[in-house]
Amino acid sequence: MKTEIQTIGTIHSPFTKLEGMPIQPAGAADATGSVVLDPAFASGLRDLEGFSHIYLVYLFHRAAQMRLQVRPFLDNREHGIFATRAPSRPNPIGISIVELLEIRENRLTVRGIDVLDGTPLLDIKPYVEAFDRVEGSRSGWLEASLDEISRKRADGRFT
Amino acid sequence: MKTEIQTIGTIHSPFTKLEGMPIQPAGAADATGSVVLDPAFASGLRDLEGFSHIYLVYLFHRAAQMRLQVRPFLDNREHGIFATRAPSRPNPIGISIVELLEIRENRLTVRGIDVLDGTPLLDIKPYVEAFDRVEGSRSGWLEASLDEISRKRADGRFT
Repeated sequence: MKTEIQTIGTIHSPFTKLEGMPIQPAGAADATGSVVLDPAFASGLRDLEGFSHIYLVYLFHRAAQMRLQVRPFLDNREHGIFATRAPSRPNPIGISIVELLEIRENRLTVRGIDVLDGTPLLDIKPYVEAFDRVEGSRSGWLEASLDEISRKRADGRFT
Repeated sequence: MKTEIQTIGTIHSPFTKLEGMPIQPAGAADATGSVVLDPAFASGLRDLEGFSHIYLVYLFHRAAQMRLQVRPFLDNREHGIFATRAPSRPNPIGISIVELLEIRENRLTVRGIDVLDGTPLLDIKPYVEAFDRVEGSRSGWLEASLDEISRKRADGRFT
């Protein structure tokens, strides 16, 4: 089944090239960016300012074609695409949690942004600790690599 | 800009009607369900079993048409759609974090499921504590309602 989705805004970040980007917000803790929502949707932001963190749901618009096995940035072995956050997914949809600093009309200022400048926005959701915080999780193959996240940078492997 | 996305599987849950459903995994802690991935994508699950929790990304296929202001289940006042997790969004995409119990070929057994039986699956991503766990977040208007989450059940307001 196919469905059409629409871009509802654009994410702006300091990262204009995939090469050298942080690979997750953990590696971009200080990177500030902005989310510009199409003004037609601006009234949907009401009361969002009370949340300290939000999910950005977006399109990996520069992703290469789908690959079911990938060698992610944090490992040299192949893993199934669903066991990674790599962009070359069957549906190239990304999610990132960022800190919400300010909202002015249809523009949000956010911190901890890890996406490419110009990324098409699909949705904004509040991060709600009671729904989204997990205690005692296991991170599979990534556990061996977690200390590398803040140092590691993207290269061209998914373009 | 419009983009086409595809259903890659189906989520099965004990909830066949919107009325009476838990409104978030926090209200469905014991609800077990399954995710049946289209066999064409099954090789993408490799190494996912090492993760205790996963994100399910799915379509709110029964959502009413878009509304930018909604009265969510947890409040009697209106809020902007982006300040809620309600389904009637510009792009009716939902995300839930569930516990991964088992994978057999293209079928995942999960716990803490809060979606309608038959929900179309768009993506599976590993929950990674280093990326996704937020310390000290504020939950805006929802903070007053958080103790109600596990009791509250859905009604027909978004159908």
